[in-house]
Amino acid sequence: MPTTDEPILVPAARLHAFVMACLEAVGAAADDAKVVADVLIAANLRGVDSHGVARLRRYVKGIHTGTIEARPSRTIPQEGPATAVIDAGNGLGQPAALAAMRLAIAKAEQVGLGMVLTRRSNHFGIAGYYAMLALEHGMIGMVSTNASPQVAPTFAAEPMFGTNPLAIAIPTGGPSPFVLDMATSTAARGRIEQMRREGKPIPAGWAIGPDGTTTTDAGALIAGLIDRRGHALLPVGGAGETYGGHKGYGLALMVDLLCGPLAGAAWGRHVYGPSGANLGHCFLAMRVDCFRPWDEFIADSDQLLRDIRAAKKVPGQERVYIPGEKEAEETQRRTRDGIPLLPVVLSDLAKLADEAGVEFSLA
Amino acid sequence: MPTTDEPILVPAARLHAFVMACLEAVGAAADDAKVVADVLIAANLRGVDSHGVARLRRYVKGIHTGTIEARPSRTIPQEGPATAVIDAGNGLGQPAALAAMRLAIAKAEQVGLGMVLTRRSNHFGIAGYYAMLALEHGMIGMVSTNASPQVAPTFAAEPMFGTNPLAIAIPTGGPSPFVLDMATSTAARGRIEQMRREGKPIPAGWAIGPDGTTTTDAGALIAGLIDRRGHALLPVGGAGETYGGHKGYGLALMVDLLCGPLAGAAWGRHVYGPSGANLGHCFLAMRVDCFRPWDEFIADSDQLLRDIRAAKKVPGQERVYIPGEKEAEETQRRTRDGIPLLPVVLSDLAKLADEAGVEFSLA
Repeated sequence: MPTTDEPILVPAARLHAFVMACLEAVGAAADDAKVVADVLIAANLRGVDSHGVARLRRYVKGIHTGTIEARPSRTIPQEGPATAVIDAGNGLGQPAALAAMRLAIAKAEQVGLGMVLTRRSNHFGIAGYYAMLALEHGMIGMVSTNASPQVAPTFAAEPMFGTNPLAIAIPTGGPSPFVLDMATSTAARGRIEQMRREGKPIPAGWAIGPDGTTTTDAGALIAGLIDRRGHALLPVGGAGETYGGHKGYGLALMVDLLCGPLAGAAWGRHVYGPSGANLGHCFLAMRVDCFRPWDEFIADSDQLLRDIRAAKKVPGQERVYIPGEKEAEETQRRTRDGIPLLPVVLSDLAKLADEAGVEFSLA
Repeated sequence: MPTTDEPILVPAARLHAFVMACLEAVGAAADDAKVVADVLIAANLRGVDSHGVARLRRYVKGIHTGTIEARPSRTIPQEGPATAVIDAGNGLGQPAALAAMRLAIAKAEQVGLGMVLTRRSNHFGIAGYYAMLALEHGMIGMVSTNASPQVAPTFAAEPMFGTNPLAIAIPTGGPSPFVLDMATSTAARGRIEQMRREGKPIPAGWAIGPDGTTTTDAGALIAGLIDRRGHALLPVGGAGETYGGHKGYGLALMVDLLCGPLAGAAWGRHVYGPSGANLGHCFLAMRVDCFRPWDEFIADSDQLLRDIRAAKKVPGQERVYIPGEKEAEETQRRTRDGIPLLPVVLSDLAKLADEAGVEFSLA
């Protein structure tokens, strides 16, 4: 017998149409709404529910309250043979990010590499979506973005930058490409929110309280992050330097330098400041065949991934996964069965539909 | 009273001349010997003693036994406006890496970005050395290399790739540039060798034994890595996925895909195989002023780093470091005072001098 906590399966196409309808209802262009729907549904299909339709409310609310421009004018203030900067005009992050990645790919098509930075943007969803666009062009894609300040540098006791994700997609032989899409924090905030919902403590070493010592209370942590009371997530590798926390911190700061000062966007503590998000993103595309004949590359990468899958396992584990493999399998499953949404998410979408004056007929 | 374990301070210039003399004695060209000396001494000056003159024996021995070509012919099998591949002809890694980074910089000078991959190379020292070359050109440098197999993927119980370092140098305002130079393993092997010398156990979570469970015995671990008995280091984030070990694994595998299959070099378990090292390296240069006016970038990056240094500290810590800051300070100190070498390293250098027929007058 289903309980109220059991997820309900919703076909991806229905969710997609619903996302578009909500965004168009508050004034977004159909083209832009479609891109946002593509990216949100892709996240749900890949199993990254923290970046799926559960985020829709923020975008709708952002446009509704005017913190996100419904019809931004995007400009290209600087451009070269392999490089460009896009000013997203404070519009939705997804269409600006798509335009930037496409431009990076077009430049790589011409000269082998393309790098495009975006400024004055907003939350763009999963970084991996854009990195994966490179794959069908025979290219490697790398994408990163800065984010609202939630992560403390090594030895610091307050958040100084975001979870600053890095995504890298590499076309490879085998059943699925290499797709690494990682927050540079130990855990993504979405995962902590999920554990709070499940009433679980988080592992020691994921986050610190305002006194700088570790906290395992997911509820207090999320509340403290929202109210900016000094709670902070920790970089990959955790507290201090023993397990490489300074490496995760270094990667996060690299992302902030590229997406903030270099892109001409906000950085560090100033992201999502009084004058808006002003997020910066970074998109890089590299043509495989500028370095190696395609067939040779695919043959070698296939063999490398086969070797890794066939490696001896640690006790209790049956598989060694290639980055992106779990998500590719989840996409197959959810495309077939539908996207499982928790009742709490569905009822929020119903409320959102009501507010936006959109018909809600998902379940 | 000095004990036999106390380091002796040696001026950098003397060490440099000694490194050159040893390499020239076994047949390396003076230009190549100078590059190797530059890179080894830079490592010692930065405090990365595991990659300093302690490595000289391996290079000398490699040339002496013919596993490294003393006078390689380097070729450029593939080249485009922003990209190139260098075949290092199985010569010393450092001169090939220098040539590759210079070529990447020259391409970035022209089109904004340059990426050069190197195949059939050998150990190139610290990756950060080459990344930092970009700085004086107003560029960002990124460098990586694959390495001998020592690291286990998440959930695997045997080494499948190397410590695959990533180095990123970004010119910034302030006392020292951002220089992140990190192994993608929890700890670099050099650090474990140091703890073995000091008779200390390594922290649980750095490495596993052949049964796939954690080991803290530095001596058994190093012996097992050398004899390929199934011991393995773990990626940044440690065992399993709880602390992001799958992220460190993903980064390490990304480096292997770029430096192995893409560069046309050996990869994974096959690096340092029967036919030689065949290491692959990756060098990327990006011109800052293709994205943002130089002065604006420097002003913003300076402020970001100031913010981070000024962050509230965790209890017991007095500073928040910028990546590369400790190393820049150590370089100042060691340039002034000399490079501290342990008696065991000095006596090995004396033995090496004797074998190579070179005068040894360091201490």
